[in-house]
Amino acid sequence: MPLTLAVARERSDGESRTALVPETAKKFAALGARLRMEQSAGVQSHFLDPDYIGVDFMPSLEGSYAGADLILRVTPPSLAEIAAMPEGAVLIGLLKPYEAKERLAALNARKITAFSLELLPRISRAQSMDALSSQGACAGYQCGLIAAARCTKFFPMLTTAAGTIRPARVLVIGAGVAGLQAIATCKRLGAMVEAYDVRAAAKEQIESLGAKFVDTGVSADGAGGYARELTAEEKAAQAEKLAKAVAAADVVITTAAIPGKKAPVIVTRDMVGRMKYGAIIVDMAAESGGNCELTQPGEHVIANDVNIHGPLNLPSRMPTHASELYAKNIYNFLSPWIKDGALNIDWSDEVVAGTVLCRDGATVHATVKQILGDA
Amino acid sequence: MPLTLAVARERSDGESRTALVPETAKKFAALGARLRMEQSAGVQSHFLDPDYIGVDFMPSLEGSYAGADLILRVTPPSLAEIAAMPEGAVLIGLLKPYEAKERLAALNARKITAFSLELLPRISRAQSMDALSSQGACAGYQCGLIAAARCTKFFPMLTTAAGTIRPARVLVIGAGVAGLQAIATCKRLGAMVEAYDVRAAAKEQIESLGAKFVDTGVSADGAGGYARELTAEEKAAQAEKLAKAVAAADVVITTAAIPGKKAPVIVTRDMVGRMKYGAIIVDMAAESGGNCELTQPGEHVIANDVNIHGPLNLPSRMPTHASELYAKNIYNFLSPWIKDGALNIDWSDEVVAGTVLCRDGATVHATVKQILGDA
Repeated sequence: MPLTLAVARERSDGESRTALVPETAKKFAALGARLRMEQSAGVQSHFLDPDYIGVDFMPSLEGSYAGADLILRVTPPSLAEIAAMPEGAVLIGLLKPYEAKERLAALNARKITAFSLELLPRISRAQSMDALSSQGACAGYQCGLIAAARCTKFFPMLTTAAGTIRPARVLVIGAGVAGLQAIATCKRLGAMVEAYDVRAAAKEQIESLGAKFVDTGVSADGAGGYARELTAEEKAAQAEKLAKAVAAADVVITTAAIPGKKAPVIVTRDMVGRMKYGAIIVDMAAESGGNCELTQPGEHVIANDVNIHGPLNLPSRMPTHASELYAKNIYNFLSPWIKDGALNIDWSDEVVAGTVLCRDGATVHATVKQILGDA
Repeated sequence: MPLTLAVARERSDGESRTALVPETAKKFAALGARLRMEQSAGVQSHFLDPDYIGVDFMPSLEGSYAGADLILRVTPPSLAEIAAMPEGAVLIGLLKPYEAKERLAALNARKITAFSLELLPRISRAQSMDALSSQGACAGYQCGLIAAARCTKFFPMLTTAAGTIRPARVLVIGAGVAGLQAIATCKRLGAMVEAYDVRAAAKEQIESLGAKFVDTGVSADGAGGYARELTAEEKAAQAEKLAKAVAAADVVITTAAIPGKKAPVIVTRDMVGRMKYGAIIVDMAAESGGNCELTQPGEHVIANDVNIHGPLNLPSRMPTHASELYAKNIYNFLSPWIKDGALNIDWSDEVVAGTVLCRDGATVHATVKQILGDA
């Protein structure tokens, strides 16, 4: 019996992505896997059932999961969805490993082997599997678009017969994958972009996109490549430089999220109070509490005529391409272990070992165990 | 007594612009005008009362209009607002001259001299006063942003570790000021842009923005620079070429509006039926009925999984810059006639004569009279 790979429709609120797209379905089929999908599982991403070649479509979630060896998901499964999974199946997805101990317990009770892509070691070989990066790029791009659409000014400089419009001033805080994509999007639209990151190494990347690095004059680089603790004076100097950049901006985009932790508050209530009338904050860290003290996740808050947007699940706003990238990440992760329709995972592989969340009825990921305790 | 110039808060639904910004207030004051504004008239555009130097603020519309010689507006006044205008005052704005005969009658009853900027002769000397152009540029930019934000794909080509994303395919129909700005915005964002206009002269402008001209192989250029009537075969050939371009696009932006007339239907129900699953139409002509047969003004309609957006009053989405440009247009129109605090209009001036809608109790604009009859 060849390996059966199954994908159900994502049922989380507002989730439009899918873990299998027509292109990756074809590739999995070429590796000998049998493919099964719930009807309309790709529709929200604008992939119709007939677009998938060689996939069997089932009318229900239960029907698609029954007998499955390998289950692909975007979001963590609900307890009901876990109950529909065959005992011993392999599951892969963005499983929010640091949340919901009950989910972990349910997965272990059914002896599900679960890979959580948030745990993927960020080594160069794993880049093509890095779902946090691919989805972060989508999120950063969407943040740039939200900022432009909500700004009451043009982003680009505009020379018209009636006079010249100066470009809008954008500040991006946090220059990871998402931050860099937000910078690139705002630069493409013609805005004047400044960016800040605590990591000194980010300076070069920021400048390579044509943006200006906000130099706070304080470096946290310490011995052995680790960040050192700043003194109180240094912290104050850093905060003041940043507050000035925030006050000068028409748009502030914050992207400083830390997986599994509450987002650090970077833009305080005071700093919002010093911002321009009509300015905008797009807080990409809203999901984990927000980088702005006044952010309300999923809401649009107005304080001192500053508009603070806390959008959630940004990649799901562009599900066609977000799914394409995500599905490729999953394919790249799994394909080395599938041959002639059989799944043979090398548990000694560094990427596999780093990403596995639970196996054989137990949570095996060290950091997750440390945070959640045994489940 | 110097000239008194008055601006009230715009009261139309969803209108955020203002006809006087701090910069033009300063310039009018330098010409000797006394300035009066209703309180908070600039707030929606993010100009606060204290930002205006040398302007008297009044708590009510009546208070700001009382004794005014010159009234600046964005939108047409309501009958109540007209009632608050001093007899014989001069009014300027985007007055929708082809609509609302009652408004015209009310203006004439109060002997208001009204300039409607939609009527401005489109000659090169008047470009700096061209409010349809400046607001059209805002509208086109906003259409580009709406299209990008609603598209479920990236506009730019993206090279990621997981593979390459092809750029989105955008088709812009109508290459006037708004269309060209929509093209520029989508190009900036990295989309592959095609554009079409019935005027052969648009080809060069489209190509100068890096977009591809959709050549239908049919030219409507006739003798003496006028468009000639196409034969039935030519019309069919043209429609088929355009339908093919529409079917291939991820995003279609339509901008073919004709002032004072219903917008032509260019994208038919049939053409929508042939579009890609998940494609988007942004219909800038929604206000005047729409260029797409299925557009509902102000609504988001989904047909055959094609998302059809019919946004209204697009410039008002970016009121800070839209007001700045509009206020400059008005200043450029009026300033030649203001000296030492006195208003002396040269009625023989081509731009003045072309723009005046009514004067001394009568509608004087020939085309408006022809369409609406005497009022």
